[in-house]
Amino acid sequence: MFRPEIKVLDCTIRDGGLMNNWQFTDEFVKAVYNACVASGIDYMEIGYKSSEKSFSREEVGAWKFCDEKDLRRIVGDNNTSLKLSAMADIGRIDPNDILPASESLLDMIRVAAYAHQTDKAIWLAEHCMDKGYEVTINIMAVSTVIERDLEEALCDLSKSRVPIIYLVDSFGSMYCEQIEYLVDKYMKLMPGKTIGVHMHNNLQLAFSNTITGIIKNCNMLDATFLGIGRGAGNCPIEALLTFLKNPKFKLKPVLRVIQDYLVPMQKDISWGYYMPYMISGALNQHPRSSLKWMDSDQRDNIVAYYEQMTDKNDL
Amino acid sequence: MFRPEIKVLDCTIRDGGLMNNWQFTDEFVKAVYNACVASGIDYMEIGYKSSEKSFSREEVGAWKFCDEKDLRRIVGDNNTSLKLSAMADIGRIDPNDILPASESLLDMIRVAAYAHQTDKAIWLAEHCMDKGYEVTINIMAVSTVIERDLEEALCDLSKSRVPIIYLVDSFGSMYCEQIEYLVDKYMKLMPGKTIGVHMHNNLQLAFSNTITGIIKNCNMLDATFLGIGRGAGNCPIEALLTFLKNPKFKLKPVLRVIQDYLVPMQKDISWGYYMPYMISGALNQHPRSSLKWMDSDQRDNIVAYYEQMTDKNDL
Repeated sequence: MFRPEIKVLDCTIRDGGLMNNWQFTDEFVKAVYNACVASGIDYMEIGYKSSEKSFSREEVGAWKFCDEKDLRRIVGDNNTSLKLSAMADIGRIDPNDILPASESLLDMIRVAAYAHQTDKAIWLAEHCMDKGYEVTINIMAVSTVIERDLEEALCDLSKSRVPIIYLVDSFGSMYCEQIEYLVDKYMKLMPGKTIGVHMHNNLQLAFSNTITGIIKNCNMLDATFLGIGRGAGNCPIEALLTFLKNPKFKLKPVLRVIQDYLVPMQKDISWGYYMPYMISGALNQHPRSSLKWMDSDQRDNIVAYYEQMTDKNDL
Repeated sequence: MFRPEIKVLDCTIRDGGLMNNWQFTDEFVKAVYNACVASGIDYMEIGYKSSEKSFSREEVGAWKFCDEKDLRRIVGDNNTSLKLSAMADIGRIDPNDILPASESLLDMIRVAAYAHQTDKAIWLAEHCMDKGYEVTINIMAVSTVIERDLEEALCDLSKSRVPIIYLVDSFGSMYCEQIEYLVDKYMKLMPGKTIGVHMHNNLQLAFSNTITGIIKNCNMLDATFLGIGRGAGNCPIEALLTFLKNPKFKLKPVLRVIQDYLVPMQKDISWGYYMPYMISGALNQHPRSSLKWMDSDQRDNIVAYYEQMTDKNDL
C-alpha cells in the first residue's frame, strides 16, 4: 500500500515564516519540532540559512539565519530520527558561513534558485555536499520559464552530483496535467535523480498536485501544518499524512499542534484561500501583489484587486 | 481550448442552505441569481423541491420547497439563458406536487438517491421528464457502496430514459484515481449518458476532482460561490471558472458576490477547511458527526473529535 521511498518534509517554519518574518515563539517552533518527531515526519525545514549581511535581525527572526545556538535551543542534540533542513537562497548566503555538517545540527541544505541561476545553485549545492550535507536544488517559478531554458537547466542539473531536484509551483498556478507533463520532463532529462514536489495552494490544488507527484513517482513531498505558508500556503501536511498509508506516520501529534497553535494563529496571519491569492494563482503571477493587497486596508475589496490585475478585462 | 458541451451548475443556495436551513435573505439569493446570469453559468440550483408534509416552514426557509411564488419573487419570469434547477430527495417529495414544467419557473429537477433507491429515483426522474423537465439522477455516497451493488444500479440507470447521471463524492473522501476509476465504470456501464460530478471539499480535493472529471469527459460540473456547502463545502465556482476557457464565462460578477456576501457570511456559517470535516472525509464517514461537533462548544477540540472517530487509534 505504501512506497517506502517517500519522504515527507515539513516546512512550516521556513515557508510559514515568509508571512511573519519568522517571528515565531520558541514554544511554537518546539511544538512543531516535537510533533514532527512524534508523527514520523522525515525532515523538518526550520528556516533559511542566510547571511547576516543580507538581513537585519531587527526585521527578521532567528529562523532566517538558523544559527546553531538557536537550533540547539529548540532541538537540543536532536537525538531523533527527524532530520533538520534549512533553505539557502542564491545570493543571500555566504558559502563560508556554512559549517561542516559534522559541526551542525542541520542535516540538509536545500538550495532555492530560479532556472537562470542553475549553475550557481549547482556550485552551492555541491559545496554543501562536500561539507557533508544532504542537498536538494529547488527550481522555482517554473510556470513562467521558457521551456527551452528549463530543459537546459534540467540537463545541467542532470550532470551535477545533486541527487534530489524539486518541481516547485511557486505561484500556485498549475494543475494535474501540467504537473504530470513537467514530472515526465524532469524524469526524462534527469534520469536517476529523485524528484520532489513543493506546491502552493492558490487554487486549492496543492494537495492534489502533491498526490499527482506521488502517482508520478516523486518521492520528496513538502507540506506544512494546516497548510501555512506564503500567501495561499502549501500542501496541508495533515491531509497528506492521511493519504500516505505508511504506518509510521501518526496524525494525532500534528492535529494537536494545529488545534493549539495554528488555528489560533489564523487570526493574526492571513494564509489560505483568500481571493487575491486565488486570482494571482489563476493569472500565473508572483504572489507579491496579492500579499501587498492583503496587507493593505483594501484587502476586502476583491473586485478592485481583480481589476488591477486584469486591466479591467475579465479573466 | 474549451469543450462546449461542459455545463456549470451553481448549487450555492441548495447545498449552502444545508448549513443554515435555507435561511438566506432574498437580497443574497437575488445577488447569486444575478451573478449566475451575468457570469454565463448554465444552471442555478436554487433549492430543494420538498413536500410541506416532510418539513416545517418554521424550521426551514423557502428554498427547501421552491414554491413558484418564491421563485418568481427572485427571478421574475427568468427571461435569461440561466436555467433553474431544484433537487428532489427520494421520499421527501410528493410527485403530485410537481407542476408541469410549462407552469413552473424550474427547468430541471435533479433526483438525489442512494444506490439502493435507484428504482425509485428512475421512476421519479422519468415522472419529471414526462412533465417536461430536464432531469438528472445523483447517486450519493458511492464511496461506501459495495461495488456489485453500484454496478447493478448503474446498469438499471443505463436502461432508463434519464440522460444525465452524477458521480457524487458525498463524504469528500475520494481522490483523482478513485474518480478516474468510477467515471470509467459509469461510462462503460451507461454508454451514451452524460456524467456529472458533484464533489465535496473535506480534503481540499473538490476542485481537483472536478478537474479530473473534466479530463475524463464529464460534462456537468457542480460548484458553489466560495465553495459554500455542507461541511467542508463544494468545488469553488470562482476557481472552476478561471480553469474553463470558454469565453462566455465571466469571473467578476462572481467575485463581487463573494466580496459582498460570502466573505462576510463566513463569520456566521462554518463551511470550509475545518479539521473535523477533514477528519470525517479522510475516514470516509458521513459528515453528520463533524457537523454536530462543529455546532457544539467542543468545536475547537480537534484531537477529541479525532479520538472519538478513531476509538483513540491513530489514523
